[in-house]
Amino acid sequence: MEAFGRKETGEETVHGIARNQLRAFIERIERLEEEKKTLVDDIKDVYGEAKGMGFDTKILRKVISLRKQDQDERMEQEAILDTYLQALGMVPAAEEA
Amino acid sequence: MEAFGRKETGEETVHGIARNQLRAFIERIERLEEEKKTLVDDIKDVYGEAKGMGFDTKILRKVISLRKQDQDERMEQEAILDTYLQALGMVPAAEEA
Amino acid sequence: MEAFGRKETGEETVHGIARNQLRAFIERIERLEEEKKTLVDDIKDVYGEAKGMGFDTKILRKVISLRKQDQDERMEQEAILDTYLQALGMVPAAEEA
Amino acid sequence: MEAFGRKETGEETVHGIARNQLRAFIERIERLEEEKKTLVDDIKDVYGEAKGMGFDTKILRKVISLRKQDQDERMEQEAILDTYLQALGMVPAAEEA
Repeated sequence: MEAFGRKETGEETVHGIARNQLRAFIERIERLEEEKKTLVDDIKDVYGEAKGMGFDTKILRKVISLRKQDQDERMEQEAILDTYLQALGMVPAAEEA
Repeated sequence: MEAFGRKETGEETVHGIARNQLRAFIERIERLEEEKKTLVDDIKDVYGEAKGMGFDTKILRKVISLRKQDQDERMEQEAILDTYLQALGMVPAAEEA
Repeated sequence: MEAFGRKETGEETVHGIARNQLRAFIERIERLEEEKKTLVDDIKDVYGEAKGMGFDTKILRKVISLRKQDQDERMEQEAILDTYLQALGMVPAAEEA
Repeated sequence: MEAFGRKETGEETVHGIARNQLRAFIERIERLEEEKKTLVDDIKDVYGEAKGMGFDTKILRKVISLRKQDQDERMEQEAILDTYLQALGMVPAAEEA
């Protein structure tokens, strides 16, 4: 499985490492990481813009996160949470069924 | 600073929230998050490919991280680390200067 | 500010590092980290026990997190979230005031 | 497996939740979390103290992390890293064997 020691392929090696191959992998990863960083900055910018228009960015993040969840599952989780909070006296109890 | 309650602009509002504006922000963020996820997957794929060619991906990550650092700073940090490790007997001591 | 090179104190030094002092710091940190690890395991065990009694651990974590927040702030955040979700059609709209 | 609806045990329930049991779990977790927070602060304090004596805390963290690793494994990882860095021209090349 080792890709080292391929002097036979004409690839220059250092201590048996295919130098160009290593360099190519590193550069591909760095390029992708750079693109990712740009996107992360873009996302931050959009939140900044939304904030400038009066939206609450913490709540926006929560909305984004909720939209990834299945709606039925989310409703069910909310229902269980309410039950726990009521049992702990952390919210006004709904009427007993 | 609040962007709410702009019935005057013709924007449909719900409880004073500019519905279309909110939706636009959410959709922009979700699109960017989707692109980011694709890049994260791409990066994972390149590491996978490198691993398939015999490279050690943990070390590759270390190399990527070291390349982001200033070389002089890196050398200096390594030197301090060596001194600490020698003081703790964790590496063979170099000759005393 | 440097505490190195204190040969005058009788402390054995390696490359100017006070060996015993370094060792003492390392050992104190490792002992505390060990205690922390034990607590992290204990917490995991309690969640496991709660799960065994039929509680939903994900919701328990949410409850713990909510209890750290100020109740008024929490209620306000919930209200804003609801408004956003309604604007996006993600929950049945409450009656317009 | 559900521990709810145990009216028969005399435990007060809210919507079928054993209120005291829930409260007990929450309190045990909160107490452990509190102890954990104290330890995290203690660890931070020790690093602060070490820094005050002239030690480099970033390097101390690295030392702690290295001590958790197996020494042979660590040496081997360092050797592979060196080979990669040499192949990339990031360190002066050792003599070719």
